[in-house]
Amino acid sequence: MKALVYGGPGLKSWTEVPDPTIENPTDVIVRVDTTTICGTDLHILKGDVPAVAVGRILGHEGVGTITEIGASVSSLAVGDRVIISCIKSCGHCVNCSAQLFSHCLGDEGASGIGWVFGHLIDGTQAELVRVPYAENSLHRVPDGVSDDQAVMLSDILPTGFEIGVQYGRVKPGDVVAVIGAGPVGLAAIATAGLYGAATIIAIDLDENRLARARDFGATDAVVSGSADWKEQVLALTDGAGVDVAIEAVGIPQTFTMATEIVRPGGNVANVGVHGAPVDLHLENLWIQNINISMGLVNANTTKMLLKLVAKGKLPAEKLATHHFTFDQFLEAYDTFGRAAETKALKVVIAR
Amino acid sequence: MKALVYGGPGLKSWTEVPDPTIENPTDVIVRVDTTTICGTDLHILKGDVPAVAVGRILGHEGVGTITEIGASVSSLAVGDRVIISCIKSCGHCVNCSAQLFSHCLGDEGASGIGWVFGHLIDGTQAELVRVPYAENSLHRVPDGVSDDQAVMLSDILPTGFEIGVQYGRVKPGDVVAVIGAGPVGLAAIATAGLYGAATIIAIDLDENRLARARDFGATDAVVSGSADWKEQVLALTDGAGVDVAIEAVGIPQTFTMATEIVRPGGNVANVGVHGAPVDLHLENLWIQNINISMGLVNANTTKMLLKLVAKGKLPAEKLATHHFTFDQFLEAYDTFGRAAETKALKVVIAR
Repeated sequence: MKALVYGGPGLKSWTEVPDPTIENPTDVIVRVDTTTICGTDLHILKGDVPAVAVGRILGHEGVGTITEIGASVSSLAVGDRVIISCIKSCGHCVNCSAQLFSHCLGDEGASGIGWVFGHLIDGTQAELVRVPYAENSLHRVPDGVSDDQAVMLSDILPTGFEIGVQYGRVKPGDVVAVIGAGPVGLAAIATAGLYGAATIIAIDLDENRLARARDFGATDAVVSGSADWKEQVLALTDGAGVDVAIEAVGIPQTFTMATEIVRPGGNVANVGVHGAPVDLHLENLWIQNINISMGLVNANTTKMLLKLVAKGKLPAEKLATHHFTFDQFLEAYDTFGRAAETKALKVVIAR
Repeated sequence: MKALVYGGPGLKSWTEVPDPTIENPTDVIVRVDTTTICGTDLHILKGDVPAVAVGRILGHEGVGTITEIGASVSSLAVGDRVIISCIKSCGHCVNCSAQLFSHCLGDEGASGIGWVFGHLIDGTQAELVRVPYAENSLHRVPDGVSDDQAVMLSDILPTGFEIGVQYGRVKPGDVVAVIGAGPVGLAAIATAGLYGAATIIAIDLDENRLARARDFGATDAVVSGSADWKEQVLALTDGAGVDVAIEAVGIPQTFTMATEIVRPGGNVANVGVHGAPVDLHLENLWIQNINISMGLVNANTTKMLLKLVAKGKLPAEKLATHHFTFDQFLEAYDTFGRAAETKALKVVIAR
């Protein structure tokens, strides 16, 4: 088969590799019909994630069709069309029992981390992929849900919802600010209304992204490059700050922005993947009764979000801005890597 | 009357000042029978809290007897014996409505902060004190509860419980570590069992304090100066870390310690009053699904804790290690200021 293979920092190729095979009775082989590229893949290609070995097939998002099942798999069948979750989970370790699937202790890849695809084991940017613990990691796609919609449920919709909206404890009537209107920020914007957010403020440097944010449910938009960005945000509250500030960028500046606009008693939900420490101004914040959450998606809401997508309640398909075929994989990476210029949100690559 | 008056950094005196008077119909005047000194008072005396004006009467903890009531006060009477909460709350602003009494917007002292005594208005280290919003800030003391017990409910017991145990989301079966076994840390240790903590680990540099921690319910003790302190803590868990790490010191090192021993999915509850920023290692923590809380006590659990003290379920009186009379106020400060040497937890000063 062909796959997108990591060749070390800066190097990748769409190249011939051996087909995957069933290794454990809980495995399934999926023919990948549709996949996409995540910002994390770009980090890996920069060499920022040293755990990724040379030769690794990248990608942790995908929709496909089951071609082979392991001996113990009973709830899935050859021919099933499935979403491949970015999180693998054994379903029975102490962390899985607590719905902390992101820290599954099952021994695929590395023990203690649920994100293994395209990281610690071969991923989904390939014609075929082996899915461990398949019955906990695959979700059957109902008729009427397109691949463009379904592939957004592998990672970004649950990430924005679980780590942004749920960890941020959004509640009815809240003013929610989302810093960073990239795909995951837009996923948080699109799902903040599920808990009744009254005002959803998108904050980004890029006016194009702010315009898109309104399509996903943002009620207001603030350009973060403006000198009075903070005053603009506070003017959309009662003056005390937002109830929930969701950080969806992953740099120290945007994290600090989140702590500066949250009201006493409010929540900062960090969704961004960070590469450096941040200064936490506890000398001011200790008295502010704020809460700071962070984490890797557990994907425990994927089935629920899939129902909403199937009912047309979440505009997942609007995240798919560019389409490619597998033989255009390098072109897809190029388009996604120049997102500010190409205005790409998610690039979808299909068989 | 006489009172302990702040004279600027490093300066204090027990001196004659005018008696307080009723200023608003919701005020009450309390004759202070018993008060105590908080670490925060030492910070103020160092000049660390510039909002405290020269001439301010210090202190935010006390038990006393009502001598005069304002025109609108109906649920309290002259002669009532009361706990003076460190938090004033109007009871009807948007923050009070959300039980965020620590950020009461009532206009006594400064709008937006519930801790005003000995900070923005005159405090409790005095023979008499004016208590604003008295019906929300005073708690009648039942018979059988001593002043030594009751005065611990002004601040430290609710602070350890609300900001440590409740914000830390302690739940049945948890392994809880408390870093810093001073009065507030001991209050967290004493109350962690209320939510069913299975293991309560006290961590401190001072072996004397660790010995005391066992009197308050600590099941284990770790000397934080030891080279293998972290291994000792992890050995008391399943190896993955503690469920809840409560920081009760207020310096960057102890905050970082808390983030290093918490398990994925766990909680760091910052109770310490910090004077400097801390490095938050988001480059490691973003993926750990931890939660970091912080804040000023709301004192919304004072009445509940008082019931437990009255029933002998919380050893509040054990916190009172040294006793003085009002004319020994400066000696009491000296003893508290040299706590490592004098082994003082709380020094109690009574009429």
